[in-house]
Amino acid sequence: MALIVHKYGGTSMGSTERIRNVAKRVAKWARAGHQMVVVPSAMSGETNRLLGLAKELAPSDNPTDYFRELDALAATGEQASSALLAIALQAEGMPSVSYAGWQVPIRTDSAFTKARIASIDDARVRADLNAGKVVIITGFQGVDPEGHITTLGRGGSDTSAVAVAAAMKAAECLIYTDVDGVYTTDPRVVPEARRLQTVSFEEMLEMASLGSKVLQIRSVEFAGKYKVPLRVLSSFTPWDIDIHEEAKSGTLITFEEDEQMEQAIVSGIAFTRDEAKISIIGVPDKPGIAYKILGAVAQANIEVDMIIQNISKGGLTDFSFTVNRNDHARAMELLKTKVMADLGAPEVIGDAKICKVSIVGIGMRSHVGVASRMFESLSAEGINIQMISTSEIKTSVVIDEKYLELAVRALHKAFDLEQNQA
Amino acid sequence: MALIVHKYGGTSMGSTERIRNVAKRVAKWARAGHQMVVVPSAMSGETNRLLGLAKELAPSDNPTDYFRELDALAATGEQASSALLAIALQAEGMPSVSYAGWQVPIRTDSAFTKARIASIDDARVRADLNAGKVVIITGFQGVDPEGHITTLGRGGSDTSAVAVAAAMKAAECLIYTDVDGVYTTDPRVVPEARRLQTVSFEEMLEMASLGSKVLQIRSVEFAGKYKVPLRVLSSFTPWDIDIHEEAKSGTLITFEEDEQMEQAIVSGIAFTRDEAKISIIGVPDKPGIAYKILGAVAQANIEVDMIIQNISKGGLTDFSFTVNRNDHARAMELLKTKVMADLGAPEVIGDAKICKVSIVGIGMRSHVGVASRMFESLSAEGINIQMISTSEIKTSVVIDEKYLELAVRALHKAFDLEQNQA
Repeated sequence: MALIVHKYGGTSMGSTERIRNVAKRVAKWARAGHQMVVVPSAMSGETNRLLGLAKELAPSDNPTDYFRELDALAATGEQASSALLAIALQAEGMPSVSYAGWQVPIRTDSAFTKARIASIDDARVRADLNAGKVVIITGFQGVDPEGHITTLGRGGSDTSAVAVAAAMKAAECLIYTDVDGVYTTDPRVVPEARRLQTVSFEEMLEMASLGSKVLQIRSVEFAGKYKVPLRVLSSFTPWDIDIHEEAKSGTLITFEEDEQMEQAIVSGIAFTRDEAKISIIGVPDKPGIAYKILGAVAQANIEVDMIIQNISKGGLTDFSFTVNRNDHARAMELLKTKVMADLGAPEVIGDAKICKVSIVGIGMRSHVGVASRMFESLSAEGINIQMISTSEIKTSVVIDEKYLELAVRALHKAFDLEQNQA
Repeated sequence: MALIVHKYGGTSMGSTERIRNVAKRVAKWARAGHQMVVVPSAMSGETNRLLGLAKELAPSDNPTDYFRELDALAATGEQASSALLAIALQAEGMPSVSYAGWQVPIRTDSAFTKARIASIDDARVRADLNAGKVVIITGFQGVDPEGHITTLGRGGSDTSAVAVAAAMKAAECLIYTDVDGVYTTDPRVVPEARRLQTVSFEEMLEMASLGSKVLQIRSVEFAGKYKVPLRVLSSFTPWDIDIHEEAKSGTLITFEEDEQMEQAIVSGIAFTRDEAKISIIGVPDKPGIAYKILGAVAQANIEVDMIIQNISKGGLTDFSFTVNRNDHARAMELLKTKVMADLGAPEVIGDAKICKVSIVGIGMRSHVGVASRMFESLSAEGINIQMISTSEIKTSVVIDEKYLELAVRALHKAFDLEQNQA
C-alpha cells in the first residue's frame, strides 16, 4: 500500500462524463490498496470564462487590489471541479472529501496570480486517508499569511500536485494529461517521434522551458528539489485498464544518476516558433553596456531569452538577444528611441522570422562532440545558424523560421531518436 | 455617515453590464459618505448550473458526505460574483475587497445545504471600512466549526445580508431585487395592487410564509430578532437616481409599534396555489390520534401546513390538513396503506384542487370583526369556505382553486387596499 497523488488536467475534467471516468480510475487505484490524493484542474474553459468576465469589467487598468480579486475569482473553477469529483467518487461508492487550498492549508506568499507555495500542512489530509477516504485537494490555489486566496499562475495545478506529493512523501505523483507522455520531439513535426519511458528531471526542465508544454516548469523544479517521482501519462486510456500496465505507462521523470546509465546522449529535440531576434551592431565594448540595453528592456516588462555577446573587435562588439515575437516591435521601438543615443547610436537590426531549435540530453555532460554533430547535421541541410547558446545539457540554435521542421527532422534522425529505446 | 448594507439578487448580478451598474450604484452611496458593505448573490442561473452538474454525477442516492460537497460546489457561485463586483468597483475608482464566508468569518452550524449562522466576526470588515474600502461579503455561505464550507439554503444571501447588518449594527439593510417593493397583493392578479411604503416585520413574516416570495423568510426572522431596519427596493431604477429619493423608495420593514399607528387594519392579501387538502372523516376522538396521523406524514418528510380538528360528535371527529400539491398523492397513499387500519379505518378524502387565501395585518390585533368581513366578502361572491385557520395577525381560508383570483380581488377591494396609503 502506497500513498499516490494523481493530477488531472482541465481536458480530463472537461465534462461530467469525463469526471465520472476520472472517479472510476481513482476508485480503481484506491481499491487496489493505495491511499489516494487527487488534484484536479478546473473544467476546461472555466478559468478563461471567469477571467473573461473580469476583463469585461476592468479591461485596461489594473487598480491596486485587482490581482487579489482575480485570484478569488479564478480559484472558484478548481473548487467547483474538486467538489464535483468528490461527488462522482461518492457515487462510485468511494468515500471522498474535497478541500480548497485554504482548508488544507496550502500556505503561499502574497504574490497574487503567481504565488509560490511556502508550506503544506498534511495533518488533516492524512487523517482522512487513514479513515479510508480519497482526498481531493483543489489545485492552482493556496492562502497567504493574511488569509487571502492566492493562485499559482497558469498550469499551477501541476505544481500543487507535486508540492502535495513532496509534503506527503508520496510514492509517486501521476500527472494525467491529454498526451501519453514526453516525446523525443513534437510528433506533429516528426511522425517518427518516440515516447520516452524515462527522462531526467534536468532534461525535463530544459524541455519544459524550451516549449514542450507537457508540464509546467515550476512543477518540474519542485519535483527535482524534493525528488518526487513524477510520471506523465494519458487520461484517455480506458479507466479500467490493468493497474500494473497503467502504472508503467507514460514517461517517468527520474532523479537518480544510476537510472540514467542507459540514457541516450540526446533525449529530445525541443523548439519554439515564436521568437524574434534583435542585434545591436558596433556597441562600444565597455562595462555597463549589457545593463544599459537589457535594463531598459526588462523595465518595459519584456522577457529576454537568449543573450549573446561576441568578442570585441577594435573596441566595438555585437550584442544580440531574443524576445517573444509579440514583444519584438515594442522592444525595437524602445531601443531606437530611448537607448541607442546613449550608446553612440550603433546599428539595430531586428528579425521576427526566426525560431529556436535545441537538442537536450543529460548524456551531453559526458560526451564530447555532440554540439558539432548538431552543426554538421544542420549544415548538411544547408541551414544557416544565426545564434548559438549552450548549457550543460542542451545546445540551442537560432535559425530562419522556414527551416524549423527541416531542422527538427534532421536532428531527430541524426541523434537516432527514432530507433533507440531510452 | 452611516453604515449601510446592500444586498443584490442574482438577476441584478446577471451579466457584467448589470454588475457594472451595481458597482456604480454602490460607489454613489460610498461617495455620499456612507460606509458600504455589499452582499451579492451568484449570477442568475449559476447555482442551478453547478447543482445540475452535481446531479448528473450523483443522480439518485445521497451518500454520507454528499451535502458537504454540494455546499463546497454551490459556494463558488457567490465567491465568483463577489470578486467580479470588487473588480467592477475598482474599475470605477472605488477601493474594494471581497471576502468569502470563511474569510470574514461567518460561522455557522454544520447543517450542510441549510446551515444556520452562529456568529459573525466584524473586525476585519470594520478595519477595511475604516480604510475607506467598500467591503463585499459573499452571501449564502459560511464556515462550520471544523472549517467546512456551508451554505444557508436557497435565498440564503438575504439572510447573510441581514445577519451582517445585525452584527455590524448597520443603519439600514437594503435588499435590491427585481420587484420595487412589497405589494398589497400580487399585481398580476389585482392590477390595482399598491406598493406598501412600510410593512411590519410580523406582517412580512406572514406574507413570506404565505407565498409572497420577495424575501426569504429566515432573513425576515433574523431582521425581527435583531431589529435590523430592512428595505426592499428595485435594482432596475437607473443607478444615478437621486440618493435621497432612492433611500425612500421600495418598502421599509419596521419593528417599532409606534411606526404602525397609521397602519391599515389589513396590509395585504397573500395566497398560495399549490395546496392540497386531506380530510380524515370519523376518527375516534382520543389522545394520540393527531400524532398517529401526522407522525407518519412527517417521517415521510412531507411538510404539513394548516391543521384543523373540529369538535367531536358522538366520540368521532374530523381531522384535516393541507400539504404541498406535489406531496398529495404520496400522503394519500401513505395514509391508506399504513395509518388508517390503526384508526378503525375511517374515510379519507383528498382534494388537490384547492388554494389558500389569507388576509394579513397587524391592525387585526386591535380590531374586531376583520375575519367576519372577510367571510362576508367571500360569501357575497358565492365562494364556499372549506377550511379556516387564524393567527393573531392573519386569517387564512382554503377554497376551491378556481375561485382564487376572484377571492383575492374581492378581498383587496373589501379592505380598501387600492385606495389607502399605508
